[in-house]
Amino acid sequence: MDSANMIGFLAGALTTVSFLPQIVKVLKTRDTRSLSVSMYGLFTLGVFLWLVYGWIVHSPPVIFYNALTFLLSAALLAAKIRWH
Amino acid sequence: MDSANMIGFLAGALTTVSFLPQIVKVLKTRDTRSLSVSMYGLFTLGVFLWLVYGWIVHSPPVIFYNALTFLLSAALLAAKIRWH
Repeated sequence: MDSANMIGFLAGALTTVSFLPQIVKVLKTRDTRSLSVSMYGLFTLGVFLWLVYGWIVHSPPVIFYNALTFLLSAALLAAKIRWH
Repeated sequence: MDSANMIGFLAGALTTVSFLPQIVKVLKTRDTRSLSVSMYGLFTLGVFLWLVYGWIVHSPPVIFYNALTFLLSAALLAAKIRWH
């Protein structure tokens, strides 16, 4: 694997995994007051479109990371709506 | 512009713009309690690596969107550290 792909995979892993500590914090505290529902609404929609993009251009890493990020972001959106 | 690129640009625009309502909310309320500092630390680092990736593969949209997202995410990280 060349250096560009290695950096791309690491970048994708970091931006995807980064949502886990936010989910853990929200589950522990049930406090979503300072989270923006508009952010997670727009972000979840945007990540879904990245997923569609990855499907059209047949890019496994774009599909893989955005599918995961979609689930994590949608979970935070649901938590914000539930515990606003 | 073909449909894939249109969807890619729209996806990039949404995931980038999505940080603006969170920044506005944090600036208004100064409340960052339920934001996770680990999320914004990991996410900002990941977006920086996407920027490096875009530079290496000479992809203007990846460079453009990740440069913007880096600034917005770094601003939220700074706000969280300042008003934790």
